[in-house]
Amino acid sequence: MDKRELILNAMQELLKEGNAGIASVSDIARKAGIAKGGIYYYFRSKEEIIDELVDRQYSKIISDCRILVEKSDYKPPDKLGLLLRGYSSGVVDKNLDVYLHSQENAYIHQKSLAKILMELSPIVTSIIEQGNKEGDFKCEYPKEYAEIALSVFTFLLDPGIFEWSKEEITNKMKALANILEKGLGAKSGTFSFLYGG
Amino acid sequence: MDKRELILNAMQELLKEGNAGIASVSDIARKAGIAKGGIYYYFRSKEEIIDELVDRQYSKIISDCRILVEKSDYKPPDKLGLLLRGYSSGVVDKNLDVYLHSQENAYIHQKSLAKILMELSPIVTSIIEQGNKEGDFKCEYPKEYAEIALSVFTFLLDPGIFEWSKEEITNKMKALANILEKGLGAKSGTFSFLYGG
Repeated sequence: MDKRELILNAMQELLKEGNAGIASVSDIARKAGIAKGGIYYYFRSKEEIIDELVDRQYSKIISDCRILVEKSDYKPPDKLGLLLRGYSSGVVDKNLDVYLHSQENAYIHQKSLAKILMELSPIVTSIIEQGNKEGDFKCEYPKEYAEIALSVFTFLLDPGIFEWSKEEITNKMKALANILEKGLGAKSGTFSFLYGG
Repeated sequence: MDKRELILNAMQELLKEGNAGIASVSDIARKAGIAKGGIYYYFRSKEEIIDELVDRQYSKIISDCRILVEKSDYKPPDKLGLLLRGYSSGVVDKNLDVYLHSQENAYIHQKSLAKILMELSPIVTSIIEQGNKEGDFKCEYPKEYAEIALSVFTFLLDPGIFEWSKEEITNKMKALANILEKGLGAKSGTFSFLYGG
C-alpha cells in the first residue's frame, strides 16, 4: 500500500475511535507507521488529510451508486429509488459525519455537500433524460431539476444545518415527491418511495 | 446609543474598510470608543460580534421584506416577485459577504444561510396560502414548497459554495420557475420574473 493510503487509513481509524478531533499530525504518523516528516511530503495539514478522506469516501459511494444504476434494467422512476437507497446505505462513517458537523469543520463540511451534489447530479440527470425518452417524464430541465432535488437532500435535510423532527422530514419528502411528480409530469405516487409510501 | 450597538457598528465599519479579518478585539474597542474590557462584558469573542452583526443585518432586511409584502395589495404571484426584489436590493453589505465566504468563517456563513431560510420561509408560506385561497395556486404543502424554493436560493445559488456562469444561473431560475408553476398549478409564465422574462 502506498504511504498516501496508509495516512488516509490511519486518519480513518482515528475517526472511528473518536479521536480525530484531538489527534496531532504526530499521532496520525504513529498510527500510519511512518515518520512525521513523511506526512508533510503528502499533505500540508491534518485538515488536508480529512479533506481527502471525505473526498475518497464520497467518491467511492457515488461511483458504486453510478454502477448500480447503470447495471440495473429498472424503469427510470425506480432507478431514482435505487440510487437513493444505494446512497443512503453507502453513507457513511457515522464518525466522519459527527466530525464534519462540528463547528471548526464547517468549511470541509460545506465543500463535501457541494461535491456530493455535483457528483450525484449527472447520475440523476441521465435518469431523468432516460425517463424523457421512454415517456415516463416530460422535463425541459433535467440537469436543473436534478440539482434542485439534490439541494433538498444535501442542504435542507442536513442534520448538521437544520434540526427537523421525523414528522417534518416526512412532510418534506412528501412535498418533494409531490413537486417532482408534477414537475416531471409523472404519475401520482411515482415518488412515494421518498416517504416510504 | 447603547454600548452593544456601538460595538456592532464599529465591527460594521471595520468590515466596510476591509479590515474585519485582521482586526483584534482591541481594534474593535478603539473603533467603538470603549474599553476593551467593555467588549467582553457583551461578547465573548470577535466571532460572536460578527455572528450578531450578521443576525442584525439579515433580520432587518427580512423584516423590511415582511412589511413590504404585507402592505402590498399585489396578487400572490406578484408578491413573490416583490419579496425577491425587496430581498435582493436589501442584501447586503458586500464586505460582509466577502467575509462570510472566507474559509475560516464557514460556520457563521452556514448558520446565516439556515437563518435566512427559516425567516423567509413563513413569508413565502403565507403568500402560497393566500394563493391557494384566491385560486392562483393549488398546493398541498405550502411550507415545504417554500423551503424547497428557498434551498435553491440559499444553497444552490450561493456564490461562496458553487461557481456558476451567468447562463447556468439563468437556466436554474428557468427550471425553478418551471417546477414551481407546475407544482403550484400556476399559469405558465407566472414566475418569469425569476429569470427576467
